[in-house]
Amino acid sequence: MSRPPFGVALVGYGFMGAAHSQAWRVAPRFFDLPFEPRMSVIVGRDRSRVEAAGERFGWASTETDWKRVIERDDIDLVDICSPGSTHVEIAIAALEAGKHVLCEKPLANTVNEARRMADAAGRAAARGVYAMVGFSYRRVPAITFARDLVAAGKIGELRQVRALYLQDWLVDAEGPMTWRLDKDLAGSGSLGDIGAHAIDAVQFITGRRVNSVSGILETLVSERPLLSESIGLSGTASEERGRVTVDDIALFTARLDGGVLCSFEATRYATGRKNAFRLEFSGSTGAIAFDLERMNELEFYDGTDAAGLHGFRRILVTEPEHPYMAAWWPTGHGIGYEHPFSHQVRDLLVDIAAGTQPRPSFDDGLQVQRVLEAVETSSAAGSSWIAVGGHDGDSPGMQKQ
Amino acid sequence: MSRPPFGVALVGYGFMGAAHSQAWRVAPRFFDLPFEPRMSVIVGRDRSRVEAAGERFGWASTETDWKRVIERDDIDLVDICSPGSTHVEIAIAALEAGKHVLCEKPLANTVNEARRMADAAGRAAARGVYAMVGFSYRRVPAITFARDLVAAGKIGELRQVRALYLQDWLVDAEGPMTWRLDKDLAGSGSLGDIGAHAIDAVQFITGRRVNSVSGILETLVSERPLLSESIGLSGTASEERGRVTVDDIALFTARLDGGVLCSFEATRYATGRKNAFRLEFSGSTGAIAFDLERMNELEFYDGTDAAGLHGFRRILVTEPEHPYMAAWWPTGHGIGYEHPFSHQVRDLLVDIAAGTQPRPSFDDGLQVQRVLEAVETSSAAGSSWIAVGGHDGDSPGMQKQ
Amino acid sequence: MSRPPFGVALVGYGFMGAAHSQAWRVAPRFFDLPFEPRMSVIVGRDRSRVEAAGERFGWASTETDWKRVIERDDIDLVDICSPGSTHVEIAIAALEAGKHVLCEKPLANTVNEARRMADAAGRAAARGVYAMVGFSYRRVPAITFARDLVAAGKIGELRQVRALYLQDWLVDAEGPMTWRLDKDLAGSGSLGDIGAHAIDAVQFITGRRVNSVSGILETLVSERPLLSESIGLSGTASEERGRVTVDDIALFTARLDGGVLCSFEATRYATGRKNAFRLEFSGSTGAIAFDLERMNELEFYDGTDAAGLHGFRRILVTEPEHPYMAAWWPTGHGIGYEHPFSHQVRDLLVDIAAGTQPRPSFDDGLQVQRVLEAVETSSAAGSSWIAVGGHDGDSPGMQKQ
Amino acid sequence: MSRPPFGVALVGYGFMGAAHSQAWRVAPRFFDLPFEPRMSVIVGRDRSRVEAAGERFGWASTETDWKRVIERDDIDLVDICSPGSTHVEIAIAALEAGKHVLCEKPLANTVNEARRMADAAGRAAARGVYAMVGFSYRRVPAITFARDLVAAGKIGELRQVRALYLQDWLVDAEGPMTWRLDKDLAGSGSLGDIGAHAIDAVQFITGRRVNSVSGILETLVSERPLLSESIGLSGTASEERGRVTVDDIALFTARLDGGVLCSFEATRYATGRKNAFRLEFSGSTGAIAFDLERMNELEFYDGTDAAGLHGFRRILVTEPEHPYMAAWWPTGHGIGYEHPFSHQVRDLLVDIAAGTQPRPSFDDGLQVQRVLEAVETSSAAGSSWIAVGGHDGDSPGMQKQ
Repeated sequence: MSRPPFGVALVGYGFMGAAHSQAWRVAPRFFDLPFEPRMSVIVGRDRSRVEAAGERFGWASTETDWKRVIERDDIDLVDICSPGSTHVEIAIAALEAGKHVLCEKPLANTVNEARRMADAAGRAAARGVYAMVGFSYRRVPAITFARDLVAAGKIGELRQVRALYLQDWLVDAEGPMTWRLDKDLAGSGSLGDIGAHAIDAVQFITGRRVNSVSGILETLVSERPLLSESIGLSGTASEERGRVTVDDIALFTARLDGGVLCSFEATRYATGRKNAFRLEFSGSTGAIAFDLERMNELEFYDGTDAAGLHGFRRILVTEPEHPYMAAWWPTGHGIGYEHPFSHQVRDLLVDIAAGTQPRPSFDDGLQVQRVLEAVETSSAAGSSWIAVGGHDGDSPGMQKQ
Repeated sequence: MSRPPFGVALVGYGFMGAAHSQAWRVAPRFFDLPFEPRMSVIVGRDRSRVEAAGERFGWASTETDWKRVIERDDIDLVDICSPGSTHVEIAIAALEAGKHVLCEKPLANTVNEARRMADAAGRAAARGVYAMVGFSYRRVPAITFARDLVAAGKIGELRQVRALYLQDWLVDAEGPMTWRLDKDLAGSGSLGDIGAHAIDAVQFITGRRVNSVSGILETLVSERPLLSESIGLSGTASEERGRVTVDDIALFTARLDGGVLCSFEATRYATGRKNAFRLEFSGSTGAIAFDLERMNELEFYDGTDAAGLHGFRRILVTEPEHPYMAAWWPTGHGIGYEHPFSHQVRDLLVDIAAGTQPRPSFDDGLQVQRVLEAVETSSAAGSSWIAVGGHDGDSPGMQKQ
Repeated sequence: MSRPPFGVALVGYGFMGAAHSQAWRVAPRFFDLPFEPRMSVIVGRDRSRVEAAGERFGWASTETDWKRVIERDDIDLVDICSPGSTHVEIAIAALEAGKHVLCEKPLANTVNEARRMADAAGRAAARGVYAMVGFSYRRVPAITFARDLVAAGKIGELRQVRALYLQDWLVDAEGPMTWRLDKDLAGSGSLGDIGAHAIDAVQFITGRRVNSVSGILETLVSERPLLSESIGLSGTASEERGRVTVDDIALFTARLDGGVLCSFEATRYATGRKNAFRLEFSGSTGAIAFDLERMNELEFYDGTDAAGLHGFRRILVTEPEHPYMAAWWPTGHGIGYEHPFSHQVRDLLVDIAAGTQPRPSFDDGLQVQRVLEAVETSSAAGSSWIAVGGHDGDSPGMQKQ
Repeated sequence: MSRPPFGVALVGYGFMGAAHSQAWRVAPRFFDLPFEPRMSVIVGRDRSRVEAAGERFGWASTETDWKRVIERDDIDLVDICSPGSTHVEIAIAALEAGKHVLCEKPLANTVNEARRMADAAGRAAARGVYAMVGFSYRRVPAITFARDLVAAGKIGELRQVRALYLQDWLVDAEGPMTWRLDKDLAGSGSLGDIGAHAIDAVQFITGRRVNSVSGILETLVSERPLLSESIGLSGTASEERGRVTVDDIALFTARLDGGVLCSFEATRYATGRKNAFRLEFSGSTGAIAFDLERMNELEFYDGTDAAGLHGFRRILVTEPEHPYMAAWWPTGHGIGYEHPFSHQVRDLLVDIAAGTQPRPSFDDGLQVQRVLEAVETSSAAGSSWIAVGGHDGDSPGMQKQ
C-alpha cells in the first residue's frame, strides 16, 4: 500500500509540541491513513532549543522562522503549537500559502483575531485547504462516545449540564510566573486554558451552542516570582516578581441553544485535583458523567433500566466498539493522555483526503472564543447575562468517527 | 442515675416527623443526656392520621391543635416538623409560652417571618428558653469533622468552595405535584429545600457568612399532575394538573466574608443522583471533599504530605475519634441517614441543660433565609450581585462537639 | 390495631446486646409486625453491669441468671447475644421451655454443640417453637437483593465466587487480648467471627452449600497483653500477657454443590480495611459485587447490555423496590450498620406468627459450623481437601422478603 | 549528542509485537538513551503477514527465519514476542550468537526450558551479553513506586499479600479457541498468562521469593469452537471444535521467604472485570493497593497518620517524583497500557550500556516458572503444599529506577 507523502511543519516545541510530535509519529502505526505523514520540520525562535527538540522529537530538520517554512513545497500542513498570541499571523499566512493548518486551542487571544482566522479558513476551504483547531479532548474515546450516546438519544431530552475543569498547580502562592499567567501571551487564564476545553466539550457533546453567559473571573494571587527555569507547566522561581494578569478562577452559568442551563467552572486552585476535567449531562431518561483523571472510563446512567437496577455504570471505554479503540490494545488496556492527539491526526488527514471540512473548524474555535469573551464581558459587568455574538453556520459537532 | 424528665411535643408526622421521632427514641439509648426525654404528644390536623402516626412512632398521646399543646405544663419542648408556612406562628407562640423549640429547616418561608422568629428566640433566650433550627446535616459526623479540620487549619487558608446538592426525583415530567412544589407552602423549591442545606453547611464548615450572591433560578416543568396519594417524597398522580410555582434548579455564585468564592448548585434534575450533597473546600495546604451518598466517608487531601505521596484519603468516619461516633458501633460500622437527628437531640439537650444557646440558632436560620432571598432577588435581577442583608451577631458555628 | 404482646429476654449486653436492643426498639416503629414486642428483661452475670445496660438500652427488668428467665410466662423469646461457648446450654434449655430462640452467630463453638442445638430446634419446631441464628448480614438490603438477582437468573449460570472479609483491628501487635482471641470462648478467630459471615452469605446468595474446602489458618501474633478495660472491639492493655489461641487469618478455597469454586479470606490484618466484607459473584451473563464498607451500594454488571455499554452499575440500594427499604427513608437516604437487625426481628416475628421456620435456621447455622470445622481440619492436614459432612435438609435460603 | 546505533530484531507481530514496536519507536523520544535504537528487522513465519506488520509497525526490513537474523552483524538485540513454546530455542541461539535478548513472559513453557535459558543467560552475561524477561508491569510507575514504598519501609513489616488478576474474555462458552488455550503452545492458561504477572509483581514489590504453594487449577469450559479469524485476544468462531487444555482459573495460596502468606487468583471468568490486576500489601504500619484498570493510581494507607485521619490515599501517579513520569506529561496527565514497554526498553539499554545485569533476569523468569510448576503440582496433588525448587541467587528486585 503506497500512500502519498504528507509534509508536516510543527511550530513550537513545548508541552504541545511534544504531544503533537508523538501524534505524527504514532498515528500511522495504528491507523490506516490516506497519507504518509513526514515529520519534515520543526520551527522555534531559539535555534539551540529547536535543534534539541528536533532531535529529541524526531523531526527531519529545524527552522527558526516560520515564514521560511510556509514557502516550502514539501510542506502540506502547518501545525501551530506556539502561544496563543502568535496564532493569528501564522495561521492566516499558512492558509494563504495553501497549507492546511492544525492550530492549538484556544484559537486566538481575542474574538477579533479568531474572526480573522475563521474568515481566512473559510476562504481557504473554498480552495480545498483546511483548518482545524486542536480541541484534542473531543477525541478522548470516552468523550467521543458520550457525544454518540447523546446523539443517539440515550439520555433522552437534555435537562442540565455541569462542566468543571479543576487543577491545582497555582495553589502555592510562591509558585513562579509562566507565560500562561500573562494576558498578553495567553489571552486569559483558567478561562481560556482549561475553560475553553469545557466549553468546546459541552458544545461538542450536546451539539448545541452556548448562547449566553453570566459569570465571574477572579485572580487570587496577583503577584508571583518570575520564572527562571521552566519545568513541566511550572518551573523554578527567580527573585524578581511579576504581575499575574489573567484569571485564576472562572465561574459561569450558561444557556445553550434551546435554553438548557449549564454550570461551568475552571480553576487552578482546586487543591488536590490534578487534571479533573469533569462533565455531567443530565437528560430525561439518562445521564453521563466523565472525569479526565480517569480518562478510560465513562459513567452512564440508564433511566430505562428495570426498577431497582438503576445506577451509574462504570464503562471501561476500551472495547473495540468504542471510538478509536479498535486501533489500540485489547479490551481493558487503557490509553494515555497523548492518544487523542493521534486520533486528531487521523481524523484530520481523513477529512483532508476526502475534501471534507475537519471539525472542530476555525468557526468552532471562533465560537469558543466568543463565549470566552462573553464571560469576560459578563464578569466586568457584574455577572449580568451577556449574549454570545455571531451565531451562524453549523452545529458544533464533527463527522461521526 | 435519675435524670429529670423532659416532655416533648412533635408537630407534624411526615418524613421529618418520622426522623425526629426516631431521634427522641434512640438518642437516650446511645448518649448520656442531661434529661430523660418523654415522647409526650404528637400533633397533626388530621385526627386519624395523627393517631396512626402516634401509635406507629410511639408517642404517648395525640393532639390536633398545636395551641393546646403549648399550654401543657408537662411539655418542655416543641419540635416543629410541619411545612415551612406554619413555622412562624407555632414557634413564636411556643417560645412565648416558655417552651424550647426545635424547628425544621428552612426556618421560614420569608426573611420577614424568619426575622420575627429570631427576634422571639432572642427574647426567649434571655429567659433561658432556647430555639434551634434543624439543619441536621451539621451533625453528620463527616461534616462536623470537616468543620473541625478547617477550624484546626488542616487545609490552610481557604481558597475556594464548591457545594452541590443533586437529586433527581423530578426528572419524570409526569411525576405528580407535592407541597414541596407549591411556593405558598414550601417557600421555594430546590433552593430552600436542599440549597439551604448547602448554604448552612458551607457557613458552618468555613465559619464564615455568605455575604453576596449572583444566581439564577429555573423551573423546568411548570405544570404537573396533582397528587392523589403521597408515597415517600413523591406519590401517585391524579388526572388534574397543577402549577409548579417553585424553582427546579438553583445555580448561584457567592462570596463569603473575607471574599472567598463559592459555587452553589441545587437541583432535582440531576438524573441518577439520588442524594448527592457534595461539598469541596480547597485551601492553601489541603482540601476536603464530601458526598452524602457516602455519608460515612470524608476525603481529605493533605498538601503537607511528602512529595509523591499526595492524594485524597478516603477516611471512613467511623472511629471513636470522630465526632459522635464513639457512641455507636465499632470502627468500620457505619451509620445511616437518621443518626444525625439523634446527635441534634443530644446537643440540643446538653445546651439547654447548660443554659447555652444551641446552634444553629434562629439567627443562623435567619441568615440562611437572607441568602435564599438574595438568590431570588439576584435571579429576578438578571443574576446581578446582591448583598446579603443584616449581618450581625456571631459567626455561623456551633460549640465544639 | 391491637397486636398481641411478645415478651423478649435478651442474654448479653455487649456489642451484640446493644445492636439487638436497638432492633427490638426500632423494628415496631418502621415495620408492621404481627406482635408487639416487649423489651421485658436483659440478662447478664454481672449485676451492676446488667443493670446499667438495662437502663441504657431500655429493658423493663434485669436478671443475672438466664435460667430464671426461661421459666417466666411472659417471655416468648430468648435472644442470645452472649459468647459462643454459652450458646448451646441456653438455647436448648430455652427451646425445651417452649421459648422461641434467636441466637447470635456463630451458632456454637463446635459442630457437636451445633448439632445438638439443631436437633433441639428440630424438636421444638414440631411444637411450633422456632429457632433462628443471627446472620444479620443476610438482611443487609444489598445482600438480600443480590440473592434476589441471582435467584432471578440475572447473572446467568454461576461461574465463580470471591468472598473476603477484611478487618485490621489486630494489626498492632501490642493491642490487647479480648475474648475473641481465646479459642475456649470464641471457638475460632477470624474464621468463625467474620469468615462465618462470608460462608453464610455465599450460601445464602447462591442457594448452594459449601461441600468441600482446602484451607489454611494462621496466627501472626501469638502473645498479647491481657485486657484491662474493654473499649469497642478492643480495649486498653495490662502488663500481663496471654496467648492468642485462635487464627488471625483464614484463607480457603471451597466448592459449592454443583462444583463452583469459591475463594474465601477472613483476616484481621488487612491494614486500612475497617470492615471490608466483599463479595463477588461471576456468572455467565452478569456479575454482582458488594463491599460492606459501602453497605448501601450494590454493583451489578449486566452482560446482556448493548455492546459498548457494559459496566458495573453502582446501584444505591435505597429505592422502595429494594428489600426492606420501603420502610425507611426516601430514595438516596441510606441506612446504617444496625438496621439489618431490625429486618431480622421483623422477619423472625412474621415467620413465628405464620408458623413458618425462620431462616437462617439452626440447621443453617450447623452447616456453617461444619464448614468452619472442615477448614480447621484442612488446615491441620496440610490444606488437603476436606468434605463438609452432614448434607441434608433444605437449601440455605430463606423465604423471599 | 551522537549515540551509537543499536540494531533490534523483533520476532513476532501479534499483540506483543505491536507493543514492543511502539516501545522501540517511542522510548528514544522521551528518555535519554545510551544508544540509538534502530528498528532493523521484524521476523515472522508468514511472509505476507510479517511484511504487513513491518510496514505498519515501521521496521526497516522483514525476515521469515529468525536464524538468519541472529547471524546479522547489525543486530545487537533480539526481542522475542512469539508464543512461549518458541522462546527456548530462539533465546539460547541468540545469546550464543552474542545478541542481547529481551524475551516476553512467561520465560518458557516448562521449568526445564526456563532453566536452560537461564543457564545460557548466565554464560552470556559473563561475556557482557544480557538477557531480560518482559514482565513489563514492573515498569508501571505505580507498581515501581509501590516497590519503592515497601523498600523504604513505608508499610512497616509485611503481614499479608493479596494478588488477583481478573479478566472475563472467556465467559462466553462459545468464544473460540486461541493459541492461549492450547497447553502445547501456551504452557498454561490463566496461570502462566496472567498469574505469572501476579507472581512476578509480588516478588518484585516485596523483594521476597514465593517458596511454597497450595493451589488448584480448573478448566470450566473444556471444548470450544476453533478460531477462524483472530481479533484482539479472541476472534471469530469456525464450526469445528477443539479441546481447551489449559486452566481457566488458578487459585493458590503461597508463602514468601520469611513466611508471609499470599493469596493469588488468576481467572478469565471474572465477569465484567476487563483487566483487573489487583495487588494489596498489608504491613504493620501501612498498606498499598493497586488495580491495573486504574493504572495511573496507587492507593496508600499510612498507619502513622494522626488519629482520625487514616484512610487510603488515592495517589495519582503522575508527578515528576514518580518513577519514569518526569519523562512524560505534566502532573495529572496519565499514561496508557504501552508506556511501561518504553520504560523497559529504557532500563534495558541503560543496563546494557553500564554492563549491569538487567532485571527481571532469566533467573527471575525461571523463578516464576518454578512457582507456576509448583502450583500445577499442588493442584494435581489435591492442593497439598509444594516447595518451590531451586532457590539461589539474588533477591527478585531490580536496580532502583
